[in-house]
Amino acid sequence: MRIGALEAGGTKMVCAIGDESGRIKEQKSFPTIDPETTLPELLAYFKDKEIEALGIACFGPVDLDKDSSSYGYITTTPKRAWADTDIVGYFSRGLGVKVGFDTDVNGSLLGEVTYGQAKGLGDAVYYTIGTGVGAGVMSGGKLVHGAMHPEAGHMLLRVREDDPLPDGVCPFHKGCLEGLAAGPAIEKRWGKKAAELGDDIRVWDLESYYLAQCMVTTTVMLSPKIIILGGGVMHQKQLFPLIREKTSELLNGYIKNSRIDDMDHYIVPASLNDDQGIMGCLKLGYDAANV
Amino acid sequence: MRIGALEAGGTKMVCAIGDESGRIKEQKSFPTIDPETTLPELLAYFKDKEIEALGIACFGPVDLDKDSSSYGYITTTPKRAWADTDIVGYFSRGLGVKVGFDTDVNGSLLGEVTYGQAKGLGDAVYYTIGTGVGAGVMSGGKLVHGAMHPEAGHMLLRVREDDPLPDGVCPFHKGCLEGLAAGPAIEKRWGKKAAELGDDIRVWDLESYYLAQCMVTTTVMLSPKIIILGGGVMHQKQLFPLIREKTSELLNGYIKNSRIDDMDHYIVPASLNDDQGIMGCLKLGYDAANV
Repeated sequence: MRIGALEAGGTKMVCAIGDESGRIKEQKSFPTIDPETTLPELLAYFKDKEIEALGIACFGPVDLDKDSSSYGYITTTPKRAWADTDIVGYFSRGLGVKVGFDTDVNGSLLGEVTYGQAKGLGDAVYYTIGTGVGAGVMSGGKLVHGAMHPEAGHMLLRVREDDPLPDGVCPFHKGCLEGLAAGPAIEKRWGKKAAELGDDIRVWDLESYYLAQCMVTTTVMLSPKIIILGGGVMHQKQLFPLIREKTSELLNGYIKNSRIDDMDHYIVPASLNDDQGIMGCLKLGYDAANV
Repeated sequence: MRIGALEAGGTKMVCAIGDESGRIKEQKSFPTIDPETTLPELLAYFKDKEIEALGIACFGPVDLDKDSSSYGYITTTPKRAWADTDIVGYFSRGLGVKVGFDTDVNGSLLGEVTYGQAKGLGDAVYYTIGTGVGAGVMSGGKLVHGAMHPEAGHMLLRVREDDPLPDGVCPFHKGCLEGLAAGPAIEKRWGKKAAELGDDIRVWDLESYYLAQCMVTTTVMLSPKIIILGGGVMHQKQLFPLIREKTSELLNGYIKNSRIDDMDHYIVPASLNDDQGIMGCLKLGYDAANV
């Protein structure tokens, strides 16, 4: 089946054509400007591609409630131009095909669970640690939406006493995960971008302390079979052993489960070369037409 | 349909006979001693009741993985006599009927979602705050199990500086929810049981600070439509307005959702007069025979 994929991000829009096996045949990116400029460009890209369905994984917040009058909308995003944009309606009317729709992080999670190392694991969590922190959650084979969608980036953490930026940078919460551990926090705290701090052990010791708290909370709240960590900050691969070690210390043997004991396969990097999002869109499109 | 219900707790076993409408026709409790003593008593109770299915909601940890060789077992419980007890196998062999099985808190949640105020809300969380803290989670209409089952009682909290018992009482974790906020912590911290401290504002101010952190974490991790708080500590009804107020303060307007804005209907007490667990067992039994 010929499927369109749209990974709608705050800085760029990745469009691709592929199939339900996860194979990407062609791909093109467009800058994210405003709906009046950008949406027609995307529609033109897909228009003559003879796709039978489209999957969209979108920055948010978005409305995922199919019973809601604003289903398929980007809702109250701080990217003002995009607030109250009916993105699903635009493409389903413009292309005349079924459109699957979910959050950007649920798209990445779906990619990993369908085509990546989490294949077949219906209880999985995907975090992206980049300019913000987002979480996608799957439980019993279904992506979790709930009243809205999880916003796990705003979980409250214990701040370490030696943190030079103890309040973090989130305008809403002192000491939440995103405010303490996403890229902008790292840059503000240490004066350089994460990518330029690779060999500074203080940076990754503190960062892994915060991410380990997130791993503990995720484990006890959701009991997943695997936690996948993606996003720009996680390109610092030295973080993984530190996070695993501190997670084990914090759990302190309380959870007796063979999957969690096997930390090297429980907390893992994304496995699809940053194509997990666009591949997840293929699956969203496929499911929209077939499920 | 005539259904048996067994709410298996660490101190007592509640047996009942009812139907899928949630009506309880008769009920009897037995002390929880050891499997050799207690299980035959329970079997004898159900034996001549002509039930067509049995639902069991059980203290844990339990194995809920139907593909596991120890499915239906109580596993590594600190109640030593009950470790590695095949409770589902015992009753399905002894009674020759289908047996539904889940955790005690999932049973209570299922009762509330099927027969109580959370009726029809497929995204819901139930906490019991008593001698310990347990959480039952439903997502998209299904009870969440995952690799094991959530153990949200052990989420890590921020300890308040004026807490006279800052480490809490959990032998595994300094400052986890159960260690700071369950009945034994209250009793150790203040020298009296929760029920005798009703008018001491310090007690409930601190308690609500910890429970509000749990509400925030639950909200951002799971995006539920309702959070139900049951268990002995929650009989202190003065806690509810305090928890709601502190939860709103901590969320600080970040989550824009009509359900969560309506705090009086978002964080609520259990609604079934402490029958939510046994009623959930009726539904577990019904589903085992019919789904």
